[in-house]
Amino acid sequence: MSLDHAASKPHERLADALSEELTAVNALIRERMASEHAPRIPEVTAHLVEAGGKRLRPMLTLAAARLCGYDGPYHIHLAATVEFIHTATLLHDDVVDESAQRRGRPTANLLWDNKSSVLVGDYLFAGSFLLMVECGNLEVLRILSAASATISEGEVLQLTAARNLSTSEEIYLRVIRGKTAALFSAATEVGGVIAGQDEATVTALRDYGDALGISFQIVDDLLDYWGTDATGKNVGDDFRERKITLPVIKAVAAADDEERAFWQRTIERGKQEDGDLETAIGLLGKHGALEATRSEAIAWSQRAKEALAVLPDSELKVMLADLADYVVARIS
Amino acid sequence: MSLDHAASKPHERLADALSEELTAVNALIRERMASEHAPRIPEVTAHLVEAGGKRLRPMLTLAAARLCGYDGPYHIHLAATVEFIHTATLLHDDVVDESAQRRGRPTANLLWDNKSSVLVGDYLFAGSFLLMVECGNLEVLRILSAASATISEGEVLQLTAARNLSTSEEIYLRVIRGKTAALFSAATEVGGVIAGQDEATVTALRDYGDALGISFQIVDDLLDYWGTDATGKNVGDDFRERKITLPVIKAVAAADDEERAFWQRTIERGKQEDGDLETAIGLLGKHGALEATRSEAIAWSQRAKEALAVLPDSELKVMLADLADYVVARIS
Repeated sequence: MSLDHAASKPHERLADALSEELTAVNALIRERMASEHAPRIPEVTAHLVEAGGKRLRPMLTLAAARLCGYDGPYHIHLAATVEFIHTATLLHDDVVDESAQRRGRPTANLLWDNKSSVLVGDYLFAGSFLLMVECGNLEVLRILSAASATISEGEVLQLTAARNLSTSEEIYLRVIRGKTAALFSAATEVGGVIAGQDEATVTALRDYGDALGISFQIVDDLLDYWGTDATGKNVGDDFRERKITLPVIKAVAAADDEERAFWQRTIERGKQEDGDLETAIGLLGKHGALEATRSEAIAWSQRAKEALAVLPDSELKVMLADLADYVVARIS
Repeated sequence: MSLDHAASKPHERLADALSEELTAVNALIRERMASEHAPRIPEVTAHLVEAGGKRLRPMLTLAAARLCGYDGPYHIHLAATVEFIHTATLLHDDVVDESAQRRGRPTANLLWDNKSSVLVGDYLFAGSFLLMVECGNLEVLRILSAASATISEGEVLQLTAARNLSTSEEIYLRVIRGKTAALFSAATEVGGVIAGQDEATVTALRDYGDALGISFQIVDDLLDYWGTDATGKNVGDDFRERKITLPVIKAVAAADDEERAFWQRTIERGKQEDGDLETAIGLLGKHGALEATRSEAIAWSQRAKEALAVLPDSELKVMLADLADYVVARIS
């Protein structure tokens, strides 16, 4: 892939357009993840924050605020807040999932221990609240606190739905709305709120973030059965971890008795053998579950773009629309 | 112990004086720990919230607000906030300590799993912020967010100081100020802030909570070597878990070569044998470490009472002073 092509990805164009603000966000993050007394905190945080995430969520906040003509300083704080919340949830997720790798690097719980991941995650949560308190906007505080509650609620729901073949598409949607879309939608919404926008604009920004996040997570779950090395996903992780995602829900709904027994053995009872992943992928294909999942991801991407309609036309708006296309480009 | 005697304990007199407000706090806690979609959340929370804690921290907030003549509704929200933060830290502590029991009952991480404890703790943290946002007071939000950050910072510091014989009394003080006193002082301080008190009063309330919390934790750490069944503490837990607390720091500072080797073997290397706890207690006695620790706890209790001086005289003020005495009564 040529450098020119790479530079044309929407999230990279966004990063270019917002480069000055992103530099300020990164400086603020580094400043606030310091702890005079407990050096373990910046060690663990740096491992994750510096690991080359795309800063997608903070960019959404910066873009939303700029799109709304905000000219104050606080979108920087809010973007850093959003990244802190995201980093805290990653630290706690890796404890919960007992993960050994994230973004191709060993996880913090493996390098240090679960204790450090739990406590440093708590420190970042608290730090995120301190950052947003500085903005002095109570509506912003309400939105981001509610998003944090929705994230943990979604994760708990995922925990209790795991390995349960009766999980419905409705519950799946609630889980991914919590664990992924809630922070996307809060990130865009607070950009509009801090800029003092009217309700229609704020709602449009929230709906964009919500739909983008849902599309993003459905694609992620689809690639777990449909990915290639190029997508950077390990095909079969969710199957081995017995997670019930949209493709499996659709295939289970269409299963005959023999197929149902297969899903019960592999997902519910966790008795997996060589060749089971291939059988699973075969069943997803047979019932059109991968295609149907792909269609839903594209429909949510479309909804994200439609939500942008009420916003004033601008270069940033085009980039946000392109971002919605890019999310599903991995499965086109 | 007769019922009359029991009813005369200061925290019980406080509970009597604040009974109407405590009922409202308990109702609010039950309302907010509900989750429509993830029933695991109220299950785990109820296990801890209903387990008969003394509600000491919320009572501090209620007492401080009432003492300052506050007549609005929000001290109830703040008291519930403080209890939510406390409950969230207990859930995460039990994961970090790999505890099996708390208050004589199996811990949540044992009854459910570590995952549920981490995620439900996160939900309660987020819920605590939602509750305080409702109060609409930015200074209160700043104080409680900062307290949450200080709590996790103290816990991380404790983690890195654990099993390290070079831990100083200064680091010990910083750890307990974080893990225990920060929430006590924030609990009393926000009671004054919500009542719109001047800086001298707010500072007095904060200093009272800080000194009370420090005294409380030193007593707790002392009882781990000095307790009896009547105090409800298991003597020797900290020693077996190789935690460095004030009595040990003092004994290590006075140790000769042979004693130092004993502490290195038992605490640093964790090679403990039958009779080691008794040897440890003997060394603490020999160097006057228990007596010196006791004196420090009493001095902090004294400081807590002195901090109250600037506050207007009232029945509640007497109860808060008595509470400071009661904290050290367990070691008198």
